[in-house]
Amino acid sequence: MTAKTLKNVRPMGAATTDLYIVDGRFAAAAPEGAEVIDCGGRILIPGLVEAHTHLDKSLLGLPWYRNEVGPRLIDKIDNEREVKVSLGLDPQVQSERQAILSISHGTTHIRSHVDVDTHHGLRGIEGVMATREKLAGYVDIEIVAFPQSSMIPRPGTVELMDEALALGADVVGGIDPCGIERDPKGHLDAVFRLAEKHGKPIDIHLHERDLMGGFSMEEIIGRTRAHGMQGKVTVSHAFCLGMSDRAYVASLHEQLAEERIHIITTAPASAPVPLVKELKAAGILTGAGSDGIRDTWGPYGNADMLERAMFVGLRNNLRRDDEVELALDICTHGGAAIMEVEGYGLEPGDQADAVLVEGETLAEAVALRAPRALVLKRGMVVARGGKAVIDAP
Amino acid sequence: MTAKTLKNVRPMGAATTDLYIVDGRFAAAAPEGAEVIDCGGRILIPGLVEAHTHLDKSLLGLPWYRNEVGPRLIDKIDNEREVKVSLGLDPQVQSERQAILSISHGTTHIRSHVDVDTHHGLRGIEGVMATREKLAGYVDIEIVAFPQSSMIPRPGTVELMDEALALGADVVGGIDPCGIERDPKGHLDAVFRLAEKHGKPIDIHLHERDLMGGFSMEEIIGRTRAHGMQGKVTVSHAFCLGMSDRAYVASLHEQLAEERIHIITTAPASAPVPLVKELKAAGILTGAGSDGIRDTWGPYGNADMLERAMFVGLRNNLRRDDEVELALDICTHGGAAIMEVEGYGLEPGDQADAVLVEGETLAEAVALRAPRALVLKRGMVVARGGKAVIDAP
Repeated sequence: MTAKTLKNVRPMGAATTDLYIVDGRFAAAAPEGAEVIDCGGRILIPGLVEAHTHLDKSLLGLPWYRNEVGPRLIDKIDNEREVKVSLGLDPQVQSERQAILSISHGTTHIRSHVDVDTHHGLRGIEGVMATREKLAGYVDIEIVAFPQSSMIPRPGTVELMDEALALGADVVGGIDPCGIERDPKGHLDAVFRLAEKHGKPIDIHLHERDLMGGFSMEEIIGRTRAHGMQGKVTVSHAFCLGMSDRAYVASLHEQLAEERIHIITTAPASAPVPLVKELKAAGILTGAGSDGIRDTWGPYGNADMLERAMFVGLRNNLRRDDEVELALDICTHGGAAIMEVEGYGLEPGDQADAVLVEGETLAEAVALRAPRALVLKRGMVVARGGKAVIDAP
Repeated sequence: MTAKTLKNVRPMGAATTDLYIVDGRFAAAAPEGAEVIDCGGRILIPGLVEAHTHLDKSLLGLPWYRNEVGPRLIDKIDNEREVKVSLGLDPQVQSERQAILSISHGTTHIRSHVDVDTHHGLRGIEGVMATREKLAGYVDIEIVAFPQSSMIPRPGTVELMDEALALGADVVGGIDPCGIERDPKGHLDAVFRLAEKHGKPIDIHLHERDLMGGFSMEEIIGRTRAHGMQGKVTVSHAFCLGMSDRAYVASLHEQLAEERIHIITTAPASAPVPLVKELKAAGILTGAGSDGIRDTWGPYGNADMLERAMFVGLRNNLRRDDEVELALDICTHGGAAIMEVEGYGLEPGDQADAVLVEGETLAEAVALRAPRALVLKRGMVVARGGKAVIDAP
């Protein structure tokens, strides 16, 4: 049995108290001789949840990649497929680098989309699976088999997706049924067929805007209903929910809530986005993620989900303290609920996945984004003073 | 005579070289016995320029302010006027705190709007003027007399603006001629009259969106032409330039360029914004700023203009290296040109106002936003390792 007492800690910003951890879970008390950690009056929150990223794509640790890529989505997709070869990108090494950066910032759960295509086959999936095994106990990684280069126009991709799911991918991915696939029926039928066959949930990238995105959304909603997949389908990005026809968006929100379809946002500043306060009012579970981190798509990103909470706040014009707390909730409880994390929270019985953050209040913690004093995974210290206890390769 | 040699430095990311500083300016050579600073191969850029902030409003250093303010612009303005009293905010102390934070991040020039209203009179102006004097040699502060609470509806404000400009404010401020003032002709006539009387430039906050903002913009353009104030007028925010009618915006751009009216953006994620690539193409000088930093308006902001360059990049979807360099240019040369800073740059003869940044390239410096190794103001070290050499009060 291992046991810890977290002394002098403020759970979610409440009054200072002591918390106890026994065998990796929060407990009502700790036995004598438990290790004591003085938290210095800092706020404790449950582990941050990175609900949308691409662990296999990051260029972390490599020489600077000079980005001269064209402006269209397809330019970026085509460029990346080639650059992976010319740079000799190793998905295992890259995913380990990014995951360890995540740990250093207090992320305890990651959902990563991982490319599956006829050019690179299952190399990405195998690489991230190896990282998942290597970092077991430090961070939980959920893998989405992701047809980044499209599925229908590239024969053989559906079969590779099938193999990826048999091999160990947890979630069926999808991508713009109209914009990229040019065949919404073919694409979504394939995605839902794979989900049914493997008994796995779905998470679809939907960048399509305005009415085109609304159309694809309606098709996703219809299939969720038909397949009885309520609670098992997520739409990532969902830019169409940021369209100006708010009455139509409200009707989409209603249907999404009815089928318990979840939304994951990266809160980009330059695209229309789902409005998180409206999603909450409609009863739609919402998570957030960093998207790609320093990859061939763009130079930004540092895997800090407290910074992402700030981005969610800035993008949604969240200024009041209760609003900033909503942004943080999306980056913790929201993502965890979508990923169906068992025992997520700070109550006795919950997994001791937690982070100490700086600040007088939760809103200040988000505004400050100071290095994390301590990160716990199942009660084990995995980062201290903004540095993970393990080194990146 | 004081002299320095910056050894092993990469100006703007170019090859490693040595630079020389004599009596506060870059020079072609340094005399024997000059102090040698090894820059470790880091990139040197000219000092960051904070071209739009509110030094008098910040709550830095105070206990956390729980924000429960209403959603309208006028709610925030009215709330702030009251809270300044209830918190006993001292504009001198607050402006010094924020300015020293700016210095720590490598900002060498600040343009600050400072509230002028019938409730607080010139207390803000006097406070920031005292800070400007106290920090002379560490950072240059330009003061805009800013009628935050409106001018026309609050009799006595125009007279206070006049006094502020006589006292030492450098620039005539203005605010939404329609949205706040409800009297575009009255407001803009007063602003331009003050500018003419004092021979000072203008910087107007224009939050008005779409056609209303376009109308106010046309009125500003017309008066700039009539008063022969080409090159002396700036519009801050200019949300209307983000409107969807791009043909109308293009015609506004053309007129702005003709009258050499400048734009300063804070690149907010939740509002329409001027598109910096289009401004550049139109030949319009563009600067950037943090806007308010941790004040009663919102909890965000850290005075880091390298982070602001990232925000400009994210908001404008700048991903390629040359695009990210444009974002950085706006946060350095752009603001400096608008403020007509004499001798801004890294060439012999220029003021030795400069910052060492981390990264292989300029784009990486923006993406990383690592603590600044060294900040120089007129050749004097004013910050090191992310910390200013002077302490905040």
